[in-house]
Amino acid sequence: MENLKAMDAEQLRENAHKMVDFIADYYNNIETFPVLSQVEPGYLQKLLPDSAPVQPESLQTVLQEIETKILPGVTHWQSPDYFAYFPSNSSVAGFLGEMLSAGINMVGFSWITSPAATELEMIVLDWLANLLNLPHHFLSKGPGGGAIQGTASEALLVVLLASRDKVLREVGKDALGSLVVYGSDQTHSSLQKACQIAGVHPENLRLLRTEACNEYALSPESLTDAISHDVASGLIPLFLCATVGTTSSTAVDPLLALGKITKKYGIWFHVDAAYAGSACICPEYRHHLNGIEEADSFNMNCHKWFLTNFDCSALWIKDRNTLIQSLSTNPEYLKNKASQGSTVIDYKDWQIPLGRRFRSLKLWMVLRLYGVENLQSYIRNHIKLAQQFEQLLAQDSRFEVLSGKYILRFVVGAPLTEQRHITAAWRLFQEAASSLLETRLP
Amino acid sequence: MENLKAMDAEQLRENAHKMVDFIADYYNNIETFPVLSQVEPGYLQKLLPDSAPVQPESLQTVLQEIETKILPGVTHWQSPDYFAYFPSNSSVAGFLGEMLSAGINMVGFSWITSPAATELEMIVLDWLANLLNLPHHFLSKGPGGGAIQGTASEALLVVLLASRDKVLREVGKDALGSLVVYGSDQTHSSLQKACQIAGVHPENLRLLRTEACNEYALSPESLTDAISHDVASGLIPLFLCATVGTTSSTAVDPLLALGKITKKYGIWFHVDAAYAGSACICPEYRHHLNGIEEADSFNMNCHKWFLTNFDCSALWIKDRNTLIQSLSTNPEYLKNKASQGSTVIDYKDWQIPLGRRFRSLKLWMVLRLYGVENLQSYIRNHIKLAQQFEQLLAQDSRFEVLSGKYILRFVVGAPLTEQRHITAAWRLFQEAASSLLETRLP
Repeated sequence: MENLKAMDAEQLRENAHKMVDFIADYYNNIETFPVLSQVEPGYLQKLLPDSAPVQPESLQTVLQEIETKILPGVTHWQSPDYFAYFPSNSSVAGFLGEMLSAGINMVGFSWITSPAATELEMIVLDWLANLLNLPHHFLSKGPGGGAIQGTASEALLVVLLASRDKVLREVGKDALGSLVVYGSDQTHSSLQKACQIAGVHPENLRLLRTEACNEYALSPESLTDAISHDVASGLIPLFLCATVGTTSSTAVDPLLALGKITKKYGIWFHVDAAYAGSACICPEYRHHLNGIEEADSFNMNCHKWFLTNFDCSALWIKDRNTLIQSLSTNPEYLKNKASQGSTVIDYKDWQIPLGRRFRSLKLWMVLRLYGVENLQSYIRNHIKLAQQFEQLLAQDSRFEVLSGKYILRFVVGAPLTEQRHITAAWRLFQEAASSLLETRLP
Repeated sequence: MENLKAMDAEQLRENAHKMVDFIADYYNNIETFPVLSQVEPGYLQKLLPDSAPVQPESLQTVLQEIETKILPGVTHWQSPDYFAYFPSNSSVAGFLGEMLSAGINMVGFSWITSPAATELEMIVLDWLANLLNLPHHFLSKGPGGGAIQGTASEALLVVLLASRDKVLREVGKDALGSLVVYGSDQTHSSLQKACQIAGVHPENLRLLRTEACNEYALSPESLTDAISHDVASGLIPLFLCATVGTTSSTAVDPLLALGKITKKYGIWFHVDAAYAGSACICPEYRHHLNGIEEADSFNMNCHKWFLTNFDCSALWIKDRNTLIQSLSTNPEYLKNKASQGSTVIDYKDWQIPLGRRFRSLKLWMVLRLYGVENLQSYIRNHIKLAQQFEQLLAQDSRFEVLSGKYILRFVVGAPLTEQRHITAAWRLFQEAASSLLETRLP
């Protein structure tokens, strides 16, 4: 075997073709794997040697080991029978975009390090903002704009930091302990984590209680009450995270009413639509974003339900300067004419890390290779499949549809899912119910 | 043309083969591009439409546009003529690993979401720790362990947060304004950024002055002086970031002496060897890490000079519980038997984001497909090429080798770089010197 070079166009071609076939075969066989990995903790340590090999091994050997040792330890998120958490879509277009981005392998911290990476990101996030009918102040032409973050957690953290520092610049940095952050008891745990990181005191995080009668949405009244109480106690209301599609209960918070309250008190208003945002490219679901014009920042994960391989979390912000003031550094070794001239955006100042991948490529390829109409059909088809599951469930009096309490959580959204996978999953639920009810009989 | 499906094994196969050829051709032609993109700010907006296409377009069309519109805006980090910043290596093996990770496309926040992802990461970071001859307390068997972060900035941030919260648990959270962080004036700007994020007051970041006579290394005396002064002022010394290979001057801080000081004062000792760490897999360069046994945490970027495609930053920590105490959340919807049993590691609690890619795959494939000996040869070859450049320079009395002041910064490290690229780069320097000196003649 010829020694594999660090980089060589023909060796890359030859080996990458083999890898393509391996991955295509994986998708051909994906239904034959148990969706949830069946291994026990520590399984891999027993299968692999204690140290890295001194001499190179062949791709064939490594691919065999991936099949026999790695794949059994994989939980198959792309399986059509995957209904856990939220989907994380791999698509043909998204995969091609990832390949190309890994091939170019540039590190786009500043405009100059690859102008196309920065500019394509601005353009596709403008495209997507328009598809979602977002307000104009989120577009890159004005003082706002969009940036791709790794995850919704990072999107939330950077805007929390921007709001924190904006207020602390006004009232003095010793006031950190007085800042209060609001969400609901349905808000994703990334809000708690962002507060931990930003140094917001844990007792100043208000996860307001929601009610089943209100479909677990955050009530404007409870927000007003909490704020009034905090203001009366001498605290400083800082930040509200509202959600369109909460993780446990898929609740939609009333953006317009909440937004008006934040305006009144000068609170930063962030809207997290991590999974549900994708649906809002369909006109019939766009109403879930009504009131988004009140928001200071908005986030949706293209890697969840928008066919863009993980990671690709789109964040829009109304006033990018607040973000840049929080996150910029300007060392000598990163200075360059374009950045100094302030004619360009340097995305390093919009995010936690310095380096960043060419992630806009995959989002651009998803939009180009599918087109808007097909993306809308894709969303509609999943919703139809979920409705079919609901119908199956309604025909069995032993189940009822609700959210909260102890529930069966069933998420439709894998690219390969068809009606037969829904039916098969439903059979499993029924079998479980039957055996559960049998056990319980006196 | 057949409509492209969201996912389809045969469509993936067909199109991904085309993309492989596109990328292989790119590497074949990479020397024909100007290394630095020549476009003007805003160039891409003029070339692309204002909105996403309603109907799908063909891969052929998109690939043509990538060639004519995107590649001219790319700065070619993989070009053998790239000598800027630090290298960010794409390799055949690293690229194959990225492909596979994008193909499986799982989101590995918890062990259960793909046990292989967590376990392979523990194993390859143990392998790498042993290659670097790191102290045993960084291995996964004990209370420490390794985790892959996106970038050195994130690695630095999470350990700063761990140290912050550990001290604040002892002295009370209102002491945040008293915490002091130390580095040198050569330390990477990510330390400043991490302090901004963590809420360390800017006036409490001590970037201690280094001297040319000391090769820009942080002097233990100046650290002791600064700490004594801070302690006398009632401040709390928190954290030291030492560097093996600083960004501007490639200085190496004296780890052992600095580490002893941190022990005396109970300061968290972090060592950043982002680019230079890779060289320490060669026994003849390992001495740069002498004293690493004093460190609480250590970081090196496999995506810089270790043939692993961006991003892959390896972080080791002596006491993983400090990290987990800072960064963990435990919402209902992420609970599972394995996590509750505490028999597994959930890497979500070691990092800022929740989701994470299967990044250990590419590092594993780099180690497997090249083997340790070839990786050592790779490092040695780059150092030899850099020495050849130094010799060329020494033969021209108009230049001298130094660091600091206004300097020519020349970094060797692209996988494709050979002696001819060094010679060509040197000719450019000489031409520039000639024309500069001619202009200056009276």
